[in-house]
Amino acid sequence: MTQSAYRHRLSVRYFETDQMAVVYYSHYLVWFEAARTDYLKSKGFPYARLEEMGFYLPVTEAYCKYLTPARYEDEIIVETRIDEMKNASLKISYRVLREKDEKLLATGFTVHPCINRERRIVRFPEVFLQALS
Amino acid sequence: MTQSAYRHRLSVRYFETDQMAVVYYSHYLVWFEAARTDYLKSKGFPYARLEEMGFYLPVTEAYCKYLTPARYEDEIIVETRIDEMKNASLKISYRVLREKDEKLLATGFTVHPCINRERRIVRFPEVFLQALS
Amino acid sequence: MTQSAYRHRLSVRYFETDQMAVVYYSHYLVWFEAARTDYLKSKGFPYARLEEMGFYLPVTEAYCKYLTPARYEDEIIVETRIDEMKNASLKISYRVLREKDEKLLATGFTVHPCINRERRIVRFPEVFLQALS
Amino acid sequence: MTQSAYRHRLSVRYFETDQMAVVYYSHYLVWFEAARTDYLKSKGFPYARLEEMGFYLPVTEAYCKYLTPARYEDEIIVETRIDEMKNASLKISYRVLREKDEKLLATGFTVHPCINRERRIVRFPEVFLQALS
Repeated sequence: MTQSAYRHRLSVRYFETDQMAVVYYSHYLVWFEAARTDYLKSKGFPYARLEEMGFYLPVTEAYCKYLTPARYEDEIIVETRIDEMKNASLKISYRVLREKDEKLLATGFTVHPCINRERRIVRFPEVFLQALS
Repeated sequence: MTQSAYRHRLSVRYFETDQMAVVYYSHYLVWFEAARTDYLKSKGFPYARLEEMGFYLPVTEAYCKYLTPARYEDEIIVETRIDEMKNASLKISYRVLREKDEKLLATGFTVHPCINRERRIVRFPEVFLQALS
Repeated sequence: MTQSAYRHRLSVRYFETDQMAVVYYSHYLVWFEAARTDYLKSKGFPYARLEEMGFYLPVTEAYCKYLTPARYEDEIIVETRIDEMKNASLKISYRVLREKDEKLLATGFTVHPCINRERRIVRFPEVFLQALS
Repeated sequence: MTQSAYRHRLSVRYFETDQMAVVYYSHYLVWFEAARTDYLKSKGFPYARLEEMGFYLPVTEAYCKYLTPARYEDEIIVETRIDEMKNASLKISYRVLREKDEKLLATGFTVHPCINRERRIVRFPEVFLQALS
């Protein structure tokens, strides 16, 4: 895709380290979530608003490839990019970079169907599709 | 109180360690929660049932004193005891022990008002009080 | 593989739920870790012993497919299976089941190289390979 | 104390919510940590540097009083203040505010002895005391 990626910034918390003195692997998935929350907000469509309208984007697949460990107090950039946009599902990809040297630390993706309050798969609301396009 | 304490068992996860190679301090509060969930279940009144009835026990105070660090793969016992039982609030205290030598690792307490779906403070339902007494 | 899977048991904690009232997606990776820790212990080779010998198994890839959400107080079984065992890396797969009806909730895998204290990739120690075979 | 408080900013992550649709109570302790890390950095003495010098500030006591729940996507301010500075220990207090209306959500404190690599209590290094005064 030619679309440029949205950049979310965060600082590594002590909480996120483990006894190998690097960030524990599950936290990258939390960073992906913080980054896509921020991305949607930047598009003028906060995820909280989607939930108020009765739509949810649960995760049905998540993948992460870990290249170089992140460490305590590292400043991190998470790039978010919409990979696939279908009528009722979305694939988002991520790149995790260390800010000081733009070193690539990890890459990954998540897949999200759109569901309603009864947990049935439904089309994205039109206003949401417009905001993201 | 003369009431004997309920004992919840858990194993320390790698996730719970930090780069000091000990359990990060916020996880003890999660252990307190797991222990009181288990305690209520042992009394025949799972917390999930209380929520189904429309009652919630949020936390309004939490305290923990850390004596000796817990480490990865330690087998842990969390003792739970009702300290105070009022009409609309509850104080629970905890003791965290290392199983192999019964070494006391931490102590703490949490305070819980009883609220309804509108987040208003209400009396505990009678069946709940009976189960715990 | 014909090898039978090792079963790790856990109870869903309130901590692990999110405002969709289901388990937040990153926690499945924590469960995978708890399950493989338990698996190695069952083979007579606790992961803590591997670290004492100066070997580490960081994660270089993690994947999870989410089928049915886990909920608070669900009793969960995580099945662990060695998928691939090479000289210096290991692929482990997982199946997450709800205990009461053996419903499959999620599947996934992790990939682990063997590294030494200098973070260089090295062969697994012989005693470790023997324990797992 | 007349000293003005240092303000750390963060956004509530979905990860931090629970099925009551509010932030789960243990995460406030993580926020306290992020805030004090940021505070030390603002004083020109990042905590990572203290660890490199062989000094650690584990937590021996933590307390939090929860007044109003934080919610997903809330912008949060955590104010950090040194309450007590002794030769070998430190008490820090925190105030958690919602940014949009400066509503006070929680208050709390943590206590930290200064220890060395052998986990023995020692005086703070002089440069650290100077940076904080």
